[in-house]
Amino acid sequence: MSRVYITDTILRDAHQSLIATRMRTEDMLPVCEKLDEVGFWSLEVWGGATFDACVRFLKEDPWERLHKLRHALPNTRLQMLLRGQNLLGYRHYSDDVVREFVRLAAREGIDVFRIFDALNDVRNLRVAIDAVKEHGKHAQGTLCYTVSPVHTVAMYLEQARDMVDMGADSIAIKDMAGLLRPSETARLGKVLRDHLDVPLFLHCHATAGLAEMCQLKAVESGCAHIDTAISAFAGGTSHPPTESMVVALHGTPYDTGLDLGLLQEISAYFAGIRKKYAQFESEFTGVDTRVQVNQVPGGMMSNLAKQLEEQGALHRIHEVFEEIPRVRRDLGFPPLVTPTSQIVGTQAVLNVLTGERYKTITNEVKRYLQGGYGHPPAPVDEAVRRKAIGQEAVIDVRPADLLKPELESLKAEIGDLAECDTDVMIYAMFPEVGKAFLSERKAGVLKPEPLISPLTVAAPSPVAERIAPTEFKVSVHGETYDVQITGANLDSQRNRRFYITLDGVPQEVDLEVLSGFSRTVGAGGRPIASKPGDVVTSMPGNIVDILVSEGDRVAAGDGVLVTEAMKMETQIQAPISGTVVAIHVRKGDRVNPNETLMEIEP
Amino acid sequence: MSRVYITDTILRDAHQSLIATRMRTEDMLPVCEKLDEVGFWSLEVWGGATFDACVRFLKEDPWERLHKLRHALPNTRLQMLLRGQNLLGYRHYSDDVVREFVRLAAREGIDVFRIFDALNDVRNLRVAIDAVKEHGKHAQGTLCYTVSPVHTVAMYLEQARDMVDMGADSIAIKDMAGLLRPSETARLGKVLRDHLDVPLFLHCHATAGLAEMCQLKAVESGCAHIDTAISAFAGGTSHPPTESMVVALHGTPYDTGLDLGLLQEISAYFAGIRKKYAQFESEFTGVDTRVQVNQVPGGMMSNLAKQLEEQGALHRIHEVFEEIPRVRRDLGFPPLVTPTSQIVGTQAVLNVLTGERYKTITNEVKRYLQGGYGHPPAPVDEAVRRKAIGQEAVIDVRPADLLKPELESLKAEIGDLAECDTDVMIYAMFPEVGKAFLSERKAGVLKPEPLISPLTVAAPSPVAERIAPTEFKVSVHGETYDVQITGANLDSQRNRRFYITLDGVPQEVDLEVLSGFSRTVGAGGRPIASKPGDVVTSMPGNIVDILVSEGDRVAAGDGVLVTEAMKMETQIQAPISGTVVAIHVRKGDRVNPNETLMEIEP
Repeated sequence: MSRVYITDTILRDAHQSLIATRMRTEDMLPVCEKLDEVGFWSLEVWGGATFDACVRFLKEDPWERLHKLRHALPNTRLQMLLRGQNLLGYRHYSDDVVREFVRLAAREGIDVFRIFDALNDVRNLRVAIDAVKEHGKHAQGTLCYTVSPVHTVAMYLEQARDMVDMGADSIAIKDMAGLLRPSETARLGKVLRDHLDVPLFLHCHATAGLAEMCQLKAVESGCAHIDTAISAFAGGTSHPPTESMVVALHGTPYDTGLDLGLLQEISAYFAGIRKKYAQFESEFTGVDTRVQVNQVPGGMMSNLAKQLEEQGALHRIHEVFEEIPRVRRDLGFPPLVTPTSQIVGTQAVLNVLTGERYKTITNEVKRYLQGGYGHPPAPVDEAVRRKAIGQEAVIDVRPADLLKPELESLKAEIGDLAECDTDVMIYAMFPEVGKAFLSERKAGVLKPEPLISPLTVAAPSPVAERIAPTEFKVSVHGETYDVQITGANLDSQRNRRFYITLDGVPQEVDLEVLSGFSRTVGAGGRPIASKPGDVVTSMPGNIVDILVSEGDRVAAGDGVLVTEAMKMETQIQAPISGTVVAIHVRKGDRVNPNETLMEIEP
Repeated sequence: MSRVYITDTILRDAHQSLIATRMRTEDMLPVCEKLDEVGFWSLEVWGGATFDACVRFLKEDPWERLHKLRHALPNTRLQMLLRGQNLLGYRHYSDDVVREFVRLAAREGIDVFRIFDALNDVRNLRVAIDAVKEHGKHAQGTLCYTVSPVHTVAMYLEQARDMVDMGADSIAIKDMAGLLRPSETARLGKVLRDHLDVPLFLHCHATAGLAEMCQLKAVESGCAHIDTAISAFAGGTSHPPTESMVVALHGTPYDTGLDLGLLQEISAYFAGIRKKYAQFESEFTGVDTRVQVNQVPGGMMSNLAKQLEEQGALHRIHEVFEEIPRVRRDLGFPPLVTPTSQIVGTQAVLNVLTGERYKTITNEVKRYLQGGYGHPPAPVDEAVRRKAIGQEAVIDVRPADLLKPELESLKAEIGDLAECDTDVMIYAMFPEVGKAFLSERKAGVLKPEPLISPLTVAAPSPVAERIAPTEFKVSVHGETYDVQITGANLDSQRNRRFYITLDGVPQEVDLEVLSGFSRTVGAGGRPIASKPGDVVTSMPGNIVDILVSEGDRVAAGDGVLVTEAMKMETQIQAPISGTVVAIHVRKGDRVNPNETLMEIEP
């Protein structure tokens, strides 16, 4: 017998993949008794996105969720996904913060820490692994799977061995994009099994319709641990259905021993829960094999499309798709996963839209080329590196080696808003959003984002509660019409249909909501860019810094603004040489693509 | 190299499984050039349900569709699914009709005939195989896959050998319910490959999330032909995505050699087409493993649930699910596929609702137990058989051996309405619906069922085109209100929301359409059954025959009515002994469950 063990992702990656990480604790707890009864090897319950969504959208304390789940699931290992030295955030933290975070997570109930680094630079895993071992928990080293000329089975084996040498209790293959194919999974799985003395775990997304086959081949190659999702939240960008894998292995030497009937009951529960979150569903939840052609993960593809659409450049998406592999090659073939997918994607967009490769280079790419994220898998393109950082030094040490201890300063910064040690970590992970959360909690005004169902939107508000007028007089061409809104329907987050009567005649108006962006004036009242000297951002984000003042002379390519977008800071450069004649932003402003942030005249 | 060949089901089973067989020829033709370029081994384009839907709903001549597809796909084999001696209908046809049908299908463009019998009684395939060979086409013998104590690999091998002996050019495993598991597929596939000299084809539905794994294991066992569906119409109750299987096998000895980019273009086309048919989508299109527990196919499960719900007996569904395997055992373990799924399901419902097993027995079960469908896979229960048919004879010959030639009489019956030889087959397959189609065509009034999109429903009709009033005065409790309908929204086929103003105050009304059925009076104005002597039907259907007259004395259990429901004739028995005091139906009436069809007083 070589029994296969299941890690179910229903409480973390499944809803992260399918409904934007929005499942609430209140919808998890009622079914925990059944989940605990199944006999999963572990339940994945925590990670960066769940922590973020709790604080940002759900206004739940993520530590409290963990605490509740721990009590509701006394017999099942709880597992989390940890971004190595990045913890649950987007930057490298100092070692004392890493140790503190792991201490608290272990104390609050995490048994298994799956630890990864976007570059598979094992040095970025060391402190986290150490800390996990120190608290007697299971440290799982993770290989981010990608496809490139340098990512050979031998390289993965070497990285895995390094992790085991550091103390990893097991190794996971993490195929976040759905790139794995069954035959390669069998080959990789076999080599890792043959050469490692620790258990092997397979985490692969069903995006391209290959994950079930990959898991079956992995199991046949000796991998005894697979990640699945209860079928109500399986398939598409999520994972293979738990029930299907249980059936597939039933009666074979790999039998999981799990009770299919119980799993079906659990799935029926979650099928009902899923309806509540309809607003977060993608339009398409089927299989998409495009990642197998252009290696651009599904989520990244839709982000890019949205970004380009906002700039009226959607027709150039194929150029961007062709540019991505080139940028990735220039950067030494990083796996595309947070944050490298954003780093590569943004640079590829800039390379296409500016008409000249690396004419504009993001701060993240600069930091990356300086070694600020660790060792790239392969040597980077030296010409690109010189263009980006000139003669500046490249660091070869582990990035966190350059960081001073920062736990005490974080504690000082957040001060009284932190009522306990876990509060400090909320602030440490997400400084702005975390601080806002703690402040709102203190003020007693925490309010989760509303769940919009077609029903609640369409329901006319009682007169007393109306927050917008529903009757108008509208004048057009000198004539005045009586307009009355009589109903509204929400097709999606972006599209609304209003039913109105116009002088008593029923009419229908479709309104597409473009996140406050319009073609003539942006959300902040800023004019839409129209001249060569107008400074724009390529992504919605926040202004972090303004590097110039009105009247300053700048040369094309000089940094003029710093924005934070998609969790990354990006320096925006002057599009032309000239004088800064107007600045339309202040620090902290939310900005959108195509808005004029600054005007430069030649 | 052992190249794998793909049969794509996009034009037949894929849309049959996911959008109730409603794809129109106009949506197939624009993409045929690309489909023809792919290099599929064959395209499945025709079968019983597509033929039926063309005539019944789309008001297309199914032969004309075949003719057009033949011209649009000059380089690809066209394949159809044929129900053996049942052809595309629900009864056994005489041999001359079978030969004529095959002749015409071959003439109009079918290259590959996949031929099955619901009981795997190979005698019911013989004439069809003969006819296909006579016209120089590919005859594929089909094993309907099921799970039972008698369905061993040896039995399937024996049946397959018999088919090959009859001239079958290949053998297909048809897993209509999603019962196959990877390990069993490998075992069955290997035995069939090792002992047969003809190619093996695998057709399995993705219902339980196992089909991709089954196909992979089959391929590894030497099966070189798999059925898939372009991903836009794949998964769920359809088939594995074509693109995923192409990728999974790429670079292996089983490489399909197909162009992934071309397939993705085709899928993008069909993704757009699918939206047009949103009204036919199931609410749930994910994975459902319940068939693996109770062996009740998905479609049958939802039909049963609907049937029971209409009788207010949904709470008894688990009893019905437990009864189904017992009925199936009593009937000698038939595979559950049209028409055996209906035969078994209906009898199981009756056994539960009447409170006594086989107190009421359908005509189909009687015919089945007389040998009227062929040899059951295992001996039937003798006690049940005696109860059903008493001392009546059981036939042991091939059912069609008892049929006289009927082609000439069919021609005579339809007369001038048939303008050509294929028209006669439309009538032969679906006497009522086919005749109506031919009549409407002659009268020039063919009109496809309307496609309802939320847009077209919500759009207010121009005043001149309004077909229903939208303003009312409504009096309630002596007060009169002005009501105006200002908008309507279609959530599903059953649910509509109306936006109205009531004395100027906006209101919202949800309306659930219950197919004309209400709790107090049925659709035909018939009272809802309330007394022990009220005769009811268990399924919506048509009255075929009335066996008694008012004033007749009847004994409990006497047949009083014959209905046709779910393609089957069922005799309805007197619930009590007494006198027929009222008959509320006439031949041809459409009737619904719970309506009083007849009243008997003790």
